[in-house]
Amino acid sequence: MRATVIHGARDVRIEEVPDPVIQHPTDAVVRVVAACVCGSDLWRYRGIEDVPEPVRMGHEYVGVVEEIGAQVTTLQVGDFVIAPFYVCDSTCENCRNGVSTSCLHGGWWGSHDGTGSSADGGQGERVRAPLADGTLVVVPGQPSDELIPHLLTLSDVMGTGHHAALQGGVREGSTVAVVGDGAVGLCAVLAAKRLGASRVVAMSRHETRQELARRLGATDVVPERGDEGVARLKEMFGGIGPDVVLECVGTKESMDQALRSARPGGQVGFVGVPAGGPELPVRTMFDTNVGVRGGVASVRNYIEELLPEVLDGRLQPGVVFDLELPLAEVAEAYAAMDERRATKVLLRP
Amino acid sequence: MRATVIHGARDVRIEEVPDPVIQHPTDAVVRVVAACVCGSDLWRYRGIEDVPEPVRMGHEYVGVVEEIGAQVTTLQVGDFVIAPFYVCDSTCENCRNGVSTSCLHGGWWGSHDGTGSSADGGQGERVRAPLADGTLVVVPGQPSDELIPHLLTLSDVMGTGHHAALQGGVREGSTVAVVGDGAVGLCAVLAAKRLGASRVVAMSRHETRQELARRLGATDVVPERGDEGVARLKEMFGGIGPDVVLECVGTKESMDQALRSARPGGQVGFVGVPAGGPELPVRTMFDTNVGVRGGVASVRNYIEELLPEVLDGRLQPGVVFDLELPLAEVAEAYAAMDERRATKVLLRP
Repeated sequence: MRATVIHGARDVRIEEVPDPVIQHPTDAVVRVVAACVCGSDLWRYRGIEDVPEPVRMGHEYVGVVEEIGAQVTTLQVGDFVIAPFYVCDSTCENCRNGVSTSCLHGGWWGSHDGTGSSADGGQGERVRAPLADGTLVVVPGQPSDELIPHLLTLSDVMGTGHHAALQGGVREGSTVAVVGDGAVGLCAVLAAKRLGASRVVAMSRHETRQELARRLGATDVVPERGDEGVARLKEMFGGIGPDVVLECVGTKESMDQALRSARPGGQVGFVGVPAGGPELPVRTMFDTNVGVRGGVASVRNYIEELLPEVLDGRLQPGVVFDLELPLAEVAEAYAAMDERRATKVLLRP
Repeated sequence: MRATVIHGARDVRIEEVPDPVIQHPTDAVVRVVAACVCGSDLWRYRGIEDVPEPVRMGHEYVGVVEEIGAQVTTLQVGDFVIAPFYVCDSTCENCRNGVSTSCLHGGWWGSHDGTGSSADGGQGERVRAPLADGTLVVVPGQPSDELIPHLLTLSDVMGTGHHAALQGGVREGSTVAVVGDGAVGLCAVLAAKRLGASRVVAMSRHETRQELARRLGATDVVPERGDEGVARLKEMFGGIGPDVVLECVGTKESMDQALRSARPGGQVGFVGVPAGGPELPVRTMFDTNVGVRGGVASVRNYIEELLPEVLDGRLQPGVVFDLELPLAEVAEAYAAMDERRATKVLLRP
């Protein structure tokens, strides 16, 4: 079968690889219906993260179960499933505590499966899914083609936006600002609105994304950044700032923006993968009582809650996909995201 | 009247100073019944913080109202009052949000009163209390002598321990570890127990304080620190660690201990004044989803809630005072705390 392999910076290829087979009785094999490229995939693509040897890529996909191991009990061949961006058993104490990204037996697509075996990436025709009962979530019936993009967001970006909002403590009536207008930032806008935020400010200077943010529930758009961005937010919210700021980028500047914009006693919910730091200024946090909470999003814990709303059309996070390409053109998918010609690219094998 | 003035490292004196007078119609003058020395007072005493000119000391006191300004409405001459360790109006948006330490019109004892006038310290015979309606809390009747130490803790250490527990998210059934066995750490043990923690581990290697911690509700004592401390806590709580760690010291080591000891998805509630840093490792926080929340404790917001339990004897945080001295011996009070001969010293003018 064919799958995506990265060989080095700006060198992403479709290659012939061995068909996946059941290796453990808890495995399933899934035929990928749709996958996508993540902002974090660009780290290797851009050479920010090293690629010492060729690696299978992709950690977001939906598909159809083709084969199950002898111990798999919750899945049947033919089931349509959503895969979160990691592998987890959904039974260990961390999973039960809502932190399945810290699963005691888990793993990562394209890396290891938790038992020491290497795990397939999601940007391919098929995937061996380890700990299939814990990892995969069945979608009732066979979803229509137009539902696919919305379902696919549950494997990462929508769940991650929701994680940001939850960790930021968004609730009925909260005032919220979102730093970052990528797919995750846009989903965070939607998630904050869904949790009852009374005002959601999208911080964006990109016209198309501003419009998308409004469509997803942003009540305001602030194009300013840095000191001017802080001043605008303070001014909008009683001179003190919003209750919650959702940090969805991961740079020093975005975290600084978030920490300085939240009101005293407010909270930063963060999901931007920290790009090599920075460390957080504990004295500022102490003086202002602004809390910081977040991290790698335990999206597996959220799929059951969000799925019904995607199925009945109340939640339409799939609008963050603004480019769709066949898997064969995966190199162009990376290039389009790298050059910011696309927010998020959906791939169809 | 006599009050405490620090002139430089290890140079604390009782001096004759002008009697306080009403300067603003919102002021009151309070005769101090009891005051105390705070761990943070030792920063100047030890020369860690500069003393460019002589400064009035003390920010924790209880006393009796002797005079009120024309606009004071909630206090009467003769009322027994508790002063939080800062000045606040209790009406601004930050105060109403529960963050009175960020009061938009507030000030600090021994520093400024929020209007630009200098504020008295609490380690003296009398104090001008600015924004008296917002700052001071009346204790019904005239408390007995044995209640005084318990009441005095509401001006700082008990409220600060409570703040740590609240910011750490302690609730019914939480598992909690407390880093720091000073007066605040001991009060954090009590606060965690009060909020329903099922287990509270006091991290202490000091026998007297271990006993005190147990008396205040600690279910376990862990003398180990660093890697060994982390390993002990992980082992005690299912291999993953406690839900919440309360950081009550403020050093690099104590914050590191807290961050590494909490379980994935857990929370660090911190109230230790950060001693010149350190910055927090955002990547570790991201990977583990351990949140950090806390800061300068808004104890004024907690007095009404905690006071009834102190009055009826359910809460006895005053046991943290292990030395009582007349105000005239304030220099010995600082020395005793500096040399760790006392946990916390109560002063009587």
